[in-house]
Amino acid sequence: MRKSVLSLAVLGTLAAFNLSGCQTTDNANAEVEAATTQPPNIIYMIGDGMGFEFISAYRYANSTLGADTLTPTVFDDLLVGAATTYPDDDTWVTDSAASATALATGVKSYNGAIGVDTEQHPQQTLMELARQHGWLTGAISTSQVTHATPASFFTHHPSRREYHAIADSLATPIAPGKWSFDVLLGGGYADFSRADKDWLPELREQGMTIITEFEQMDGLTRLPAMGLFAPVGLPHAIDDQPRLASMTTTALRLLEQQQREQQKPFALMIEGSQIDWCGHANDIACAIHEIEDFAQAIAVVREFMQRHPNTLLVITADHSTGGLTLGQGGEYAWHSDKVMRIQNSLQHLTTAMLEMPRSEWRDYLGPRLNLAFTEAEWDAVLSVEFAADSSTRTQQRQLGAVLVQLISEHTRTGWTTTGHTAVDVPILAEGPGADELRGYRDNTEIAKVLLELVK
Amino acid sequence: MRKSVLSLAVLGTLAAFNLSGCQTTDNANAEVEAATTQPPNIIYMIGDGMGFEFISAYRYANSTLGADTLTPTVFDDLLVGAATTYPDDDTWVTDSAASATALATGVKSYNGAIGVDTEQHPQQTLMELARQHGWLTGAISTSQVTHATPASFFTHHPSRREYHAIADSLATPIAPGKWSFDVLLGGGYADFSRADKDWLPELREQGMTIITEFEQMDGLTRLPAMGLFAPVGLPHAIDDQPRLASMTTTALRLLEQQQREQQKPFALMIEGSQIDWCGHANDIACAIHEIEDFAQAIAVVREFMQRHPNTLLVITADHSTGGLTLGQGGEYAWHSDKVMRIQNSLQHLTTAMLEMPRSEWRDYLGPRLNLAFTEAEWDAVLSVEFAADSSTRTQQRQLGAVLVQLISEHTRTGWTTTGHTAVDVPILAEGPGADELRGYRDNTEIAKVLLELVK
Ligand SMILES: [Zn+2]
Ligand SMILES: [Zn+2]
Repeated sequence: MRKSVLSLAVLGTLAAFNLSGCQTTDNANAEVEAATTQPPNIIYMIGDGMGFEFISAYRYANSTLGADTLTPTVFDDLLVGAATTYPDDDTWVTDSAASATALATGVKSYNGAIGVDTEQHPQQTLMELARQHGWLTGAISTSQVTHATPASFFTHHPSRREYHAIADSLATPIAPGKWSFDVLLGGGYADFSRADKDWLPELREQGMTIITEFEQMDGLTRLPAMGLFAPVGLPHAIDDQPRLASMTTTALRLLEQQQREQQKPFALMIEGSQIDWCGHANDIACAIHEIEDFAQAIAVVREFMQRHPNTLLVITADHSTGGLTLGQGGEYAWHSDKVMRIQNSLQHLTTAMLEMPRSEWRDYLGPRLNLAFTEAEWDAVLSVEFAADSSTRTQQRQLGAVLVQLISEHTRTGWTTTGHTAVDVPILAEGPGADELRGYRDNTEIAKVLLELVK
Repeated sequence: MRKSVLSLAVLGTLAAFNLSGCQTTDNANAEVEAATTQPPNIIYMIGDGMGFEFISAYRYANSTLGADTLTPTVFDDLLVGAATTYPDDDTWVTDSAASATALATGVKSYNGAIGVDTEQHPQQTLMELARQHGWLTGAISTSQVTHATPASFFTHHPSRREYHAIADSLATPIAPGKWSFDVLLGGGYADFSRADKDWLPELREQGMTIITEFEQMDGLTRLPAMGLFAPVGLPHAIDDQPRLASMTTTALRLLEQQQREQQKPFALMIEGSQIDWCGHANDIACAIHEIEDFAQAIAVVREFMQRHPNTLLVITADHSTGGLTLGQGGEYAWHSDKVMRIQNSLQHLTTAMLEMPRSEWRDYLGPRLNLAFTEAEWDAVLSVEFAADSSTRTQQRQLGAVLVQLISEHTRTGWTTTGHTAVDVPILAEGPGADELRGYRDNTEIAKVLLELVK
């Protein structure tokens, strides 16, 4: 691989300059040495649905209009390129399964595919190859760990909907006391502990530590370990607490310890799963808080990288969701301040509203949205009409749509779809090999660069 | 400027590797020598309104769904980063004037500002600094040359609306027989040849060659020269012919010739002005053809750069327009094939329709849109009701809105606004100094890097 050799050489040259001038230091040389002889740890972070426009939104939401400069974000130093995300299907618009498969295996597939190609043949994933070469592996998500993105890094299934089968694949040991992962943290308790099969006692008996409460994370002392903190996905960050950073801290602590003992590199996938979910709901405040959660996890990773410079961090998105833009209805404005005053997700708000008398809606909603609705706008909310036989889910969607429209008009947030879009997504990277990901890339190329590092 | 020194050093190291291995060649050394001692030509291309999503749209529109790979585009090799575009105003969303001022001077200003800061003080532009240092300068646009983007590179006005005053600034010599530009090509004839003032005879007398027909470009043999090919903006590319590439070819031919004689570097600004105009109209087919026009001009520039490697090409957008996304209404699709079947801009179509009896609309529109409208959809078009006293412009907008809605649904193209958005825009670059523009940047930083090269 000539390209790789060239850029390692250039990397060496770059490292030989220090900030105070153009002289080499022993320290820099030592680091170059390490970088060229030892495969780096790989930390692969996927912001599900996090297109460029989400990062722009996050940056402006964190800044103050009229201040001299923007408030820096953890994303700012890391951008290296952009990726196309199209699947091998009859559409340019990918779903999370096809895209995660591309990002995990380097192979394009159909929407819905979990680690298989268009013929449904299993494709080797980054985590499997890493395992083969003796690496430590792991994944973290704020969705259930059986969801499309984490599933595509460890399992092979014709459909993302096979959550139980995916749980079975994850739970099945690859050798006595050994699984395809060393650490797996997220939601998805209900997929492992089912009426037809409860994996948890079995797994514990075979040597895996399993926790189900966030507070138990600090007590985790050894791998393999699994944390399943919710039956399905975790609650939205805006409604609950930041959680990706603490899961990341825990996983890195355990991997670091194991690495010290066994001198093995690790590959860890970290997904900010719910940026996408908020995007599907066209819920801008929800999305910003999920990105904040993701950003806090990136900060944890970068802090780790200062202690372990032989670590490659790659951050990308599988696609963009919702057709978010920062401008709506002809006005040259996006009111980040109003977005940041919203206190809860639409899912949380509409769920609560449907459980209370309509007469209480305004008092409940007013201080949680903090938007100056006109009387006509309040009327639109309070007079929403549900069909007699409509399900709670339908009612929730209907009420949500009314709120999305009003929030969009007040904050000038634009959305075009409740699905995904085909727009290119950012690639951010840092550490040895990051230069390999510069410029426009296809999402499969990201996987290929990483697979090459493991080989 | 330590950073600049460092990256020139790295550039030298990079150039010292050739593709066949890691040995230096005399050739490579000579080029490094040249790059470090002689300021490069600067070609600054601005796709007005061309956010990431427009490049994604263009790439998919040029490719065939189901083919093994995407058809390469001229953008693919060039991406280096992304830029924030916010103005120094009470909004995150810039207009073209504030953004062009930032890109030309490195100073943020208010929406509407032409080369002035928030106090309305003139700020030195890249072209002015280049002129001071004896460089050749020029600009090309598909809008009138008095429009916000070209105007901000050469003039200083409190408002972009002062088209006549801007024309006066451009036309006023800075010394006998010498103007702020050597070559200026685009539209805007009506701003220079007015009832109150006709600049053209005067300018010709003072030594400027002026042409008003595209066909006269080949006959241009010397600078200074001005081409004003339309009273206001040029016709849309989709309705007429590609035109940015031929203007670019002409400008580069003349600058190359002058450069050979006088050994001066040049700075040339090339604007794809109407990507933005199609974006404002939410007209996807129109936008794709404008980007194709812009892409053809990039190809001309890159061909020039092969002969003149000491040329820095920087391409960016001033903002994104329309809130374009490639996905609409929940479907996981963007029908690039349908977009490419559309034959004319909405402006062209609606203008023509309003000049013909309504009974002819369907026969006229059918083969030009090539979308399979249902009878109900045709009804929506044919039964659009105009207020009795509405202007043609209002009627055109109303008819356009109906067509935008139908085209969006058929092609799954999403738009959220008829204005601009605050989403970050791409930075593409190639040539000496391109590395200075890597990563996330503010748009003022792009100007600062270029100003530094001229100093
Ligand atoms: Zn999704
Ligand atoms: Zn515009």
